Amino acid sequence: MSQTNQQIYISSDQLRSTFLAILKKTGFTDQKAERIAEIFTTNSLEGIYTHGVNRFPRFVRNTRDGYIKPDAEPTLIHASGSLEQWNGNLGPGPLNAVFATNRAIELSDKNGIGLAALANTNHWMRGGLYGWQAAKRGYVFIGWTNTIANMPAWGAMDPHLGNNPFILAVPFGKEAVVLDFAMSLYSYGKMESYATEGKRLPYPGGFDKDGALTDDPEKILESWRTLPIGYWKGASLSLLLDILATILSGGSSVNEITERKAEYACSQVFIAIDINKLQNSPAIEKEVRSIIDDLHGSLPVNDKTNIRYPGENILKIKEESLKNGIPVSRSIWEEILSL
Amino acid sequence: MSQTNQQIYISSDQLRSTFLAILKKTGFTDQKAERIAEIFTTNSLEGIYTHGVNRFPRFVRNTRDGYIKPDAEPTLIHASGSLEQWNGNLGPGPLNAVFATNRAIELSDKNGIGLAALANTNHWMRGGLYGWQAAKRGYVFIGWTNTIANMPAWGAMDPHLGNNPFILAVPFGKEAVVLDFAMSLYSYGKMESYATEGKRLPYPGGFDKDGALTDDPEKILESWRTLPIGYWKGASLSLLLDILATILSGGSSVNEITERKAEYACSQVFIAIDINKLQNSPAIEKEVRSIIDDLHGSLPVNDKTNIRYPGENILKIKEESLKNGIPVSRSIWEEILSL
Repeated sequence: MSQTNQQIYISSDQLRSTFLAILKKTGFTDQKAERIAEIFTTNSLEGIYTHGVNRFPRFVRNTRDGYIKPDAEPTLIHASGSLEQWNGNLGPGPLNAVFATNRAIELSDKNGIGLAALANTNHWMRGGLYGWQAAKRGYVFIGWTNTIANMPAWGAMDPHLGNNPFILAVPFGKEAVVLDFAMSLYSYGKMESYATEGKRLPYPGGFDKDGALTDDPEKILESWRTLPIGYWKGASLSLLLDILATILSGGSSVNEITERKAEYACSQVFIAIDINKLQNSPAIEKEVRSIIDDLHGSLPVNDKTNIRYPGENILKIKEESLKNGIPVSRSIWEEILSL
Repeated sequence: MSQTNQQIYISSDQLRSTFLAILKKTGFTDQKAERIAEIFTTNSLEGIYTHGVNRFPRFVRNTRDGYIKPDAEPTLIHASGSLEQWNGNLGPGPLNAVFATNRAIELSDKNGIGLAALANTNHWMRGGLYGWQAAKRGYVFIGWTNTIANMPAWGAMDPHLGNNPFILAVPFGKEAVVLDFAMSLYSYGKMESYATEGKRLPYPGGFDKDGALTDDPEKILESWRTLPIGYWKGASLSLLLDILATILSGGSSVNEITERKAEYACSQVFIAIDINKLQNSPAIEKEVRSIIDDLHGSLPVNDKTNIRYPGENILKIKEESLKNGIPVSRSIWEEILSL
């Protein structure tokens, strides 16, 4: 392993205080800087490095470049019953997303289900965080975002679709089952990691320049023809999520974001369902446990395979990171320290 | 092509009247028989043969075997604001689904978004139909169903997950963009067709008995290890859709359905959003058109490739079927006539 890719271990306290100092000098108020530092630290502690420590430099640069407005707050565009449309005013994506999740929860407190849509917001980093936020408070969460075009339509050469991450979360006792997935099989970040290490992808992740399916990350990074999950199915799901995010928020679509060249002013949807209002609410925890137990009762393909529900590993990763520190590549840590 | 696989062409009128006569002698009232015959005819006319004409014999047998109760109507279990939970009472799945879609629409008329969940219902046949139903009336539709276990968890040998079809639909002028997809890449019906014709699948669709990814449908039909869309991602999405359908309806989960050996008493979710209540509602049609135009502007991989939005082909298929009749395999048509 080269010197630049060497992993070092940083404590969460050091990570948080480093983030905090940089955010403060980037124009965030103390309170906002603390909340954003906490989010990037949590994402890192929970193993989502791509949208935690590894993404922090870009978040800071995007703010310094004026794409993210450090002092912007969401403003209400329109309210009708259990639907609300908010303008994110190009504020920091994670804070806007926490806000919209809370609005969806408050709307669902009234009528059982609530939808807050957010136009003109920025990258929310790790969508699963808002799933955890709602589910830990006892709400089902359904949410998604659009992105800049980074994936071709099915049968196409050039990117016209976003990878549009989609989140589903459900309370599970004091914890949660949280699914957070993008419409592309592998992210560009993941393919770059494999390429850097000279490794093949576990499964074919895109097409090469000649249109052949390949597990060679270099060839996909060259063609930009990344593979949608389920081929034509994931491409269609990406399209529908974009249409819905755009019309429900009244904000920008993938192609409108893409025309601006930089990824800002995204559209997002946050739906919360108050399961305490259901007739069967006292039985829900037991029912979820029974489904998870059945999943865990699957016959594994071999004795090294753990069959897990999405989110299951997070607590263990967090515990290890709290004990041993968060693994960060030396080059990223140096980049952060130079911000 | 063998005699039994030979395709014949049946007019929609003949299909409808044949279905109708059989349904009447299977215990459905005239009115219900007409509505069910219409649904199976529409699904066939629109090219969804697997959940139209090809599935009709099984629907009739399931009714005669007592799994589907021809005279059952949904009854309200619980209502709270914009949430309703209904008991399908094992009635015919398509009629229960039409009913629940209408309830979700009525709930959204009040508060902008409504959710009707249906416990104890039966296979809805083609989920996209309910997407079209809502979208043609001007509503966004989000819906899904659970099924019997027919797909292994990620890393597992034996089926503990359903293929749990998921529907997203959005109005598009007088038409709609409708996505209807299962969590398995290929259905068993599709793999059986390929196997019968001695063909390979277009892409690997499962694992063989030794755990190797394969495009040989015979080997997947032998192992029952069908591939989730996006591998671990589709497996997780299937799990979450099952948990949500089960807890929101208070009905049976995939593992509870599977314990009963036959697929009946499923759980389903129907969400409608009234987009006329949005601030930007006058601009929505134009916005959807702009997204579709951008999609159509993709560079195709070759000059034979049409890049389409989900549902785009339906009108053309319907027009052709009305003109030339609906293609039905001779063996299925004979089976229907013998019912």
